[in-house]
Amino acid sequence: MAKITPISGFPEWLPEQRIVEQSVLDGLRRRFELYGFASVETRAVEPLERLLAKGETDQEIYVLRRLHAQDADGDAGLGLHFDLTVPLARYVEQFRGQLAHPFKRYQIQKVWRGERPQTGRYREFYQADLDVVDQDDLSLHFDAEMARLLVESVGAMPVPPLVLGINNRKILQGVYEALGIEDLAGTLRIVDKLDKVGETGVRTMLVEAGLAESVADTCLALGRIRSTDGSFAGAVHTLGLRGDLLDRGLSELTFVMDSLADLPRGTVVANLSIARGLDYYTGTVYEGQLVGLEALGAVCSGGRYDDLVGGGGKLKLPGVGVSIGVTRMLGKLLGGGLLTASRKVPTCVLVTLPSEETRGAARAVADALRARGIAAETFHEPARFGKQIKYAQRRGIPFVWFPPESGGGGAHEVKDIRGGEQIVADPATWTPPTVDLRPSIAPRD
Amino acid sequence: MAKITPISGFPEWLPEQRIVEQSVLDGLRRRFELYGFASVETRAVEPLERLLAKGETDQEIYVLRRLHAQDADGDAGLGLHFDLTVPLARYVEQFRGQLAHPFKRYQIQKVWRGERPQTGRYREFYQADLDVVDQDDLSLHFDAEMARLLVESVGAMPVPPLVLGINNRKILQGVYEALGIEDLAGTLRIVDKLDKVGETGVRTMLVEAGLAESVADTCLALGRIRSTDGSFAGAVHTLGLRGDLLDRGLSELTFVMDSLADLPRGTVVANLSIARGLDYYTGTVYEGQLVGLEALGAVCSGGRYDDLVGGGGKLKLPGVGVSIGVTRMLGKLLGGGLLTASRKVPTCVLVTLPSEETRGAARAVADALRARGIAAETFHEPARFGKQIKYAQRRGIPFVWFPPESGGGGAHEVKDIRGGEQIVADPATWTPPTVDLRPSIAPRD
Repeated sequence: MAKITPISGFPEWLPEQRIVEQSVLDGLRRRFELYGFASVETRAVEPLERLLAKGETDQEIYVLRRLHAQDADGDAGLGLHFDLTVPLARYVEQFRGQLAHPFKRYQIQKVWRGERPQTGRYREFYQADLDVVDQDDLSLHFDAEMARLLVESVGAMPVPPLVLGINNRKILQGVYEALGIEDLAGTLRIVDKLDKVGETGVRTMLVEAGLAESVADTCLALGRIRSTDGSFAGAVHTLGLRGDLLDRGLSELTFVMDSLADLPRGTVVANLSIARGLDYYTGTVYEGQLVGLEALGAVCSGGRYDDLVGGGGKLKLPGVGVSIGVTRMLGKLLGGGLLTASRKVPTCVLVTLPSEETRGAARAVADALRARGIAAETFHEPARFGKQIKYAQRRGIPFVWFPPESGGGGAHEVKDIRGGEQIVADPATWTPPTVDLRPSIAPRD
Repeated sequence: MAKITPISGFPEWLPEQRIVEQSVLDGLRRRFELYGFASVETRAVEPLERLLAKGETDQEIYVLRRLHAQDADGDAGLGLHFDLTVPLARYVEQFRGQLAHPFKRYQIQKVWRGERPQTGRYREFYQADLDVVDQDDLSLHFDAEMARLLVESVGAMPVPPLVLGINNRKILQGVYEALGIEDLAGTLRIVDKLDKVGETGVRTMLVEAGLAESVADTCLALGRIRSTDGSFAGAVHTLGLRGDLLDRGLSELTFVMDSLADLPRGTVVANLSIARGLDYYTGTVYEGQLVGLEALGAVCSGGRYDDLVGGGGKLKLPGVGVSIGVTRMLGKLLGGGLLTASRKVPTCVLVTLPSEETRGAARAVADALRARGIAAETFHEPARFGKQIKYAQRRGIPFVWFPPESGGGGAHEVKDIRGGEQIVADPATWTPPTVDLRPSIAPRD
């Protein structure tokens, strides 16, 4: 067997890191469910034609093949999903008759992309997605709720503060229209590169694409507009442009910003430079960064898509959704050793085994603790107490239990091995301090 | 876009079915953690050479290829894992220096097999695995603990009762040795087909493989031995065979059965017909079936493997583990409509929106409920109460909240829309009955 080396782009965690990841995923799920979002999991694979329909990403797809498949086999043409939006669109169409609309779902799954691995980019990673899809019309209320839930969810994660930028595609496209630009999508794609190539680079590309220099400058001026309240609209009006699409965009973004006015100032920013790369967004777009970790890029993003679901037919199923790049955030913090759990195991109490004869008594203690929700292990073989305590120490288990050595009557004792005292205790009633019940998550010292 | 059809062998669930699946996975995880098992997730892919090293399964592997990959690309030669044991063995070797031994881990992930789909067989499905790996020696205590945890875990699932059969490979191989059989592995593989081809079929195959008829008959007689206590050992002795390996096997199985003597009688059965197909088992083997659903085959299985981990070198890392076929069990019950949840959503309370002006007040009610762990949604747009109540009914949401219509002062009321009464309530203190806090899981009427 060859020497084992990690596979680039496929991160794996040690148990103490996995506890952090689980705690984060649990927190997201809990918050999503508190807001009434239903869980959905889709299969890992989608037909290739569906994955490719979104364009742009074709070089990133992992295609499946059965090792000994015959040609024309039934599962030829399947690829691993590279996001959770394409599967959602398919799921909603496929099960439409059985879903209640508006359909609010969350989905926390791994996705796969055959990208060249680099910092913050993975080939396998967790995404946590929230979407609402309705029939015919979708209330703008949900555009605001998505932002609120993003801020709350990422805010509860053990990561630096989130700043969520919000824009509206209709504003950008409305301005471009008013400027007489014909290739709206192409212009959006260039403006989307602001982060990567800066204003000078974008200006050059816009002019190369045929825009007059004054028009390119107006596009850049639009992209400079920021506000933590509704004042962005006034700034757009000073550009001296008008149009129905622009007005609708401004009114939608104003509604969303007003709905979020109770959030701490600066958490949510109307940021008119945000374009998002994907073609299917039609209104609100979101992009969030962590303060101090801006080099990671967007750690959450999303937007409103009025025409993605429904297969382009008569069926109108508008949606709005966001995606949280869980592994992108945690990968940096876990991989860098910046975040860890207080234990390698869930165990709160190690019950020692003084002798083979006390095995039944030790198990009864562990059972009594477990019955009250306290994670407990019995040591597996009779051994010196020193060895058994060391077992607990190596794993960060905070408490060690000593059943009576006789195995029958006599006093039970429990010790806090982090330097605490040893006390007489009853397995039926003893309770650890709440902070010790589960491993705690903290920045590493 | 082509019409959407399901992909055979890749099951997907509706939200109300997914609630059942989540509840089952949560229950397994909770129980595994109460016993101190640490969570591990491994990447979905392993190098092909590692997947193929286990033999037997090569035709079932899904191989990956990047859609636009160059030849000799870095991630060529990767396949999706078909179980969680091969990844565990690799993980333990790779991270050995950073793991505390004995290493107790659980792993709940999807696995993929390119099998021909048939009842109870899937191409993508959840497995829940428990394993303990130690260095040099692994206490038999864990062989018993695995069985206990299996019985408790499956026993807590909303499925028919489990009967767990236990055997020990050393007994089978010890008997075969004492009978002078040379091809122990080949004989095991034939005996493993008892379920499929019956005694007559197995006898024919054994004789065809070169065994004398009397020897074949002794193999079959051994396979007929069952006991719910330690009496199997006496039955084996009546075969009149002796040997060190046989003695060790009998002593190991006796220890395991004695350790489980407190479980309800008949839950655990020493069943000497159990062989298990995989080559790497060296001692205890497990196989569980659901009463009344025997046609599903084994819904959980596993065993002791003394030489699987460590790469065949000097390193000795014995392990024992079991695998629960979660999707195999639930697929039958969910797919057949035999099991469902009381809601399509996690929401406990729908807060109505009487008018646009009350939006802030409605959100404040939902926030107050969520802060106390009660899942709440606000209705997204002002609408007739009848429409809003229907929204709740369609989703199975039990309670509808009515904020004061003025949006300011005045009484809040909450109604149990399953026919219960409407009462005045305070969002800061009102609490639903515990049974309504989360969706309940029950056999469908």
